[in-house]
Amino acid sequence: MTGHRKPAVCVLGTGLIGGSILRAAAAAGYEVWGFNRSEAGARAARDDGFDVRSDIAAVLGRAADADALIVVGVPMPALDAILSDVRTFAPRCALTDVVSVKAPVAETVHRHELGDRFVGGHPMAGTSESGWAATTPDLFKGAAWAVSVDPGVHAETWTQVARLALDCGAVVVPVRSAEHDRAVARISHLPHILAEALAITGAGGGALALGLAAGSFRDGTRVAATAPELVRAICEPNAEALGEVLDDALRILTAARDSLRDTDSIAQLTEAGHDGRNDYDTFRRWAITDLRPGDQEWLAKLAEAGRRGGVIESLD
Amino acid sequence: MTGHRKPAVCVLGTGLIGGSILRAAAAAGYEVWGFNRSEAGARAARDDGFDVRSDIAAVLGRAADADALIVVGVPMPALDAILSDVRTFAPRCALTDVVSVKAPVAETVHRHELGDRFVGGHPMAGTSESGWAATTPDLFKGAAWAVSVDPGVHAETWTQVARLALDCGAVVVPVRSAEHDRAVARISHLPHILAEALAITGAGGGALALGLAAGSFRDGTRVAATAPELVRAICEPNAEALGEVLDDALRILTAARDSLRDTDSIAQLTEAGHDGRNDYDTFRRWAITDLRPGDQEWLAKLAEAGRRGGVIESLD
Repeated sequence: MTGHRKPAVCVLGTGLIGGSILRAAAAAGYEVWGFNRSEAGARAARDDGFDVRSDIAAVLGRAADADALIVVGVPMPALDAILSDVRTFAPRCALTDVVSVKAPVAETVHRHELGDRFVGGHPMAGTSESGWAATTPDLFKGAAWAVSVDPGVHAETWTQVARLALDCGAVVVPVRSAEHDRAVARISHLPHILAEALAITGAGGGALALGLAAGSFRDGTRVAATAPELVRAICEPNAEALGEVLDDALRILTAARDSLRDTDSIAQLTEAGHDGRNDYDTFRRWAITDLRPGDQEWLAKLAEAGRRGGVIESLD
Repeated sequence: MTGHRKPAVCVLGTGLIGGSILRAAAAAGYEVWGFNRSEAGARAARDDGFDVRSDIAAVLGRAADADALIVVGVPMPALDAILSDVRTFAPRCALTDVVSVKAPVAETVHRHELGDRFVGGHPMAGTSESGWAATTPDLFKGAAWAVSVDPGVHAETWTQVARLALDCGAVVVPVRSAEHDRAVARISHLPHILAEALAITGAGGGALALGLAAGSFRDGTRVAATAPELVRAICEPNAEALGEVLDDALRILTAARDSLRDTDSIAQLTEAGHDGRNDYDTFRRWAITDLRPGDQEWLAKLAEAGRRGGVIESLD
């Protein structure tokens, strides 16, 4: 609960993430409406009682009139077109996004001269489902929601975006765009790549292998069920960082293969892998309580706190 | 339900798999008892009402007297020692095992001159937990349980082993040992290797990466929580087959890395990965109904049926 007036929220793209924000923000008491490119998707949302339309000019006109916070929830390949529309119809609104990768989004936003009131975001939530049918107001409960603290970000917009994340049930991880992109390459994009490779290798074993497959294969390939174009839209804009962690993974796997061949042992891999999973299982976020948006050097200090596992749980 | 007299069942090693068989077989009406090397583990089972002791001579003496079916549930590194004891105290009992890899177990069994009444087995079930505390009689419900149809296997012992698997709630996949080992390298051992590599790469990103990690990292590294020595005991005896599928995976990942670097695209990987996961999601076992143990060429015919996704759901 916040004692502050909530801005109106306009969500562009009502798929799994954008649609779930629409639902969560409505449940938290925000005035919300949205845009969806496909009229069928817009109608599905309207059938559930949400004001979602496929007329971008009307949707953004209302945002401009209400000085709404605009949330861009389209995949990366659709970003350029939607920002052109924002520039045309609502150039002075506060703006955030929920696209996976952050530095390329920020670049594109600045190219459209929409950087003044922009703060990038990325809720770490999702399923292998997509579209309005998969949306739920609970998607972000307890999730981490990265909110950019890049140099130049304004405290007022940042606070609006962070409050929206908190009101959706998430905790806020303050992070610089480039560091975010390197981190998610490790813990979100690489898992997709490995899942695809495992699915291919497993299915290569035919009916016998698929018939014997159990929990380790099911869980290890879960995200390979995601639509291929969505995986591409998430991973490809982060090609540089993903390439680096993929090289790391290839070095680790090649060393394991060589060790298995030369010494029949994968001791080093299993010890280090167990340690890594243990680091994850025992990781505890800590609450940042002594920093407020607008404080002296707040952006650098929040970036440093986020780097060390700090999150914002409340802004009151 | 079977109308046949159930043999007594003696389980050697009452960890997650062996202990769960003890529970499931007891629930299905078998007379069961067992051995556990550690007295603490044996006591834990006794506290739950099961006759499990750490005196191998006494446990196997009872098996010899009762002409019990012996189930070897120790990890591969402990196999040699336990088979020496079986050879000493109960050399004429029917014998099966639930060790992951099949060809090396069969070799070891034959080296101990225990091959006459041996039929290898492998229930495809497990969790990242281990030990008696993790056991449950429901572990095998609906699971695939590989049962060897290697040349030389006797129909009577095979039927006893297959019936035990069915009575524990599993379906039986008839498979030759070498083919089993190549298949599980793909769908069980490779998932472990990739999970370890992902855990290492993710944890390498420190607090920021671990704090942003969500479902894809959690599921992709789940089996890296397994005790390292257990992963080694499962994977290392299958070094040859695992090495080959690891090479396959390295080729796929290297091609993806090169494609990402040269063309900013992972289209080929995501399409093929999605197809592979779809093969898994749409795979349906079919029931083998026209083959019975002891029929003309039954071993070859069951092997061929298993290769095509056939399972035995009943022997009545």
